[in-house]
Amino acid sequence: MSSPGSPVAASPAPTLGTVGEQGVLERIFPRLPAATSTLLGPGDDAAVIAAPDGRVVITTDMMIHGPDFRLAWSSANDLGWKAAASNLADIAAMGATPTALVVAIAAPADTLVAFLEEFADGLREGCQAMAPGCGVVGGDLSVSDTLTIAVTAFGDLEGRVPVTRSGARVGDVVAVSGVLGAAAEGLRLLFALGVPDAATAAELRRTHPDQVAAQLRPHPPIADGKAAALAGATAMLDLSDGLAIDATRLATASSVALALSALTVQELTGGEDHSLLATFPAGTELPGGFRAIGEVIEGQGLHLDGRHVDGAGWDPYSGWDGARG
Amino acid sequence: MSSPGSPVAASPAPTLGTVGEQGVLERIFPRLPAATSTLLGPGDDAAVIAAPDGRVVITTDMMIHGPDFRLAWSSANDLGWKAAASNLADIAAMGATPTALVVAIAAPADTLVAFLEEFADGLREGCQAMAPGCGVVGGDLSVSDTLTIAVTAFGDLEGRVPVTRSGARVGDVVAVSGVLGAAAEGLRLLFALGVPDAATAAELRRTHPDQVAAQLRPHPPIADGKAAALAGATAMLDLSDGLAIDATRLATASSVALALSALTVQELTGGEDHSLLATFPAGTELPGGFRAIGEVIEGQGLHLDGRHVDGAGWDPYSGWDGARG
Repeated sequence: MSSPGSPVAASPAPTLGTVGEQGVLERIFPRLPAATSTLLGPGDDAAVIAAPDGRVVITTDMMIHGPDFRLAWSSANDLGWKAAASNLADIAAMGATPTALVVAIAAPADTLVAFLEEFADGLREGCQAMAPGCGVVGGDLSVSDTLTIAVTAFGDLEGRVPVTRSGARVGDVVAVSGVLGAAAEGLRLLFALGVPDAATAAELRRTHPDQVAAQLRPHPPIADGKAAALAGATAMLDLSDGLAIDATRLATASSVALALSALTVQELTGGEDHSLLATFPAGTELPGGFRAIGEVIEGQGLHLDGRHVDGAGWDPYSGWDGARG
Repeated sequence: MSSPGSPVAASPAPTLGTVGEQGVLERIFPRLPAATSTLLGPGDDAAVIAAPDGRVVITTDMMIHGPDFRLAWSSANDLGWKAAASNLADIAAMGATPTALVVAIAAPADTLVAFLEEFADGLREGCQAMAPGCGVVGGDLSVSDTLTIAVTAFGDLEGRVPVTRSGARVGDVVAVSGVLGAAAEGLRLLFALGVPDAATAAELRRTHPDQVAAQLRPHPPIADGKAAALAGATAMLDLSDGLAIDATRLATASSVALALSALTVQELTGGEDHSLLATFPAGTELPGGFRAIGEVIEGQGLHLDGRHVDGAGWDPYSGWDGARG
């Protein structure tokens, strides 16, 4: 960190490689959000959490440097927040209340300890903002050439039936809570900058804050998952691959068609919003941020303004060109 | 897969990149072990498992190509087996019965689908052999330059108190179930071959099957975790970093010293055995494969044949030279 001619011998910034796993964990733990469900926290071979319902909802998701994020665009805090958000949304989409996370990180040995601390801060801020009471109960820290974040999230059904993708019935209202297409628009704007670059990305955050935040720091309506279940939602899922693809999945799982109206191409195809798509019995007073976008009809797949739609969205295999940045 | 002059146009072997996430998952799912705890399996935003005890034991662990395994030595089936074994051992070390796993894999786009199928076979064979009834209830599949396997495992306490590291009392017997030092000896033999090479590794499997299997395909005594809890174990942990380091952890957590006797350096320092170290009240009839190796005394740390031992084992940061193979 000091130039060869520097008169002051500055000590290099501590990294994962110089501080070691145990040292880093000791610095991260105090920053992680506590979970009210914790019965036995980090420090043993395994954690123990309360599952008062007698069932546990579980989802797992990996974020990979390159296909899933660019370090020129996302701060470590953003990554922690997004890792929480995307997993919390999957728990919410079952109608459950998020209770805990475990987080495994593999990072290059020259990763700054400060980066990992900021990542922990993002996890904490995300949990506190989106799912108060949910926290980190365990994890793993490894070295890898590729920065990789693996989160597993847990939820409690509090006595409710899980809301799956397969329960939509003809006549139900189709509704969504959260933004549609904003995350994809943010990604388009970021890619339009050319080679990933922190300075131009920072400028874009100022000119298009909503779209960039939707992509880098999404804020899905986690509490609306439970609210939808309480309101009688018949089916629900998290919009991760775009409305067209995900709505088709719900329609297929339920053996019905979804007839939507008045949506733009961006709203239909933009991925990574982590908004909630749900169906409710006709006449239901829609809870929280849900708004009607169509209805369930007989048939197959997806219809927009009366015409069949063939969805196409983000495919991590065809969609990644091998670049990182 | 066909040479330029080949008269027959052979179709190339399918890969993650050509088949895509959904296609690969459809081929993997039938090979995965079913969990008797499953209430809602793969296919929705999240899985739901039974937690009849009202508590869930949770552990997570990543395996990274390079620091954690070499593809010249480990088959995909070995990797699936070992991913199951290392996580099941952490559940067992709490005195719990393993109920389910979720498995996230990130792999290069040119990874053969057959490799991922064999990995699933290894998961299934490992669960069936070590924890019948435990199975895979969900997962994630991503593309990455670095083959990365993240497993989160769950266990049920069946009404028992979790066995932590901190309950050892002066006068207790120290006992171990499973091999000591064999995995490290296998690793030493593999590294002694020089550059990782499948042919010489195969020869080593024939000449030193126990040591190589202990490293590449460990078989920890999972059922002995529950057996130890039922027998009244006061403390327990999984030997992942070597007896010297892990016994010192147990001693420190319990504010006691462990006095061990008649152990070789290899038994003391070899990591990755995933054997179980436990303490039992004096006079306990040791359950399953447990055998006495010492006793709990007043003081701190670890003593061997009356002398203090300063343990040193595998550190993933200082221990990995950046090579993969």
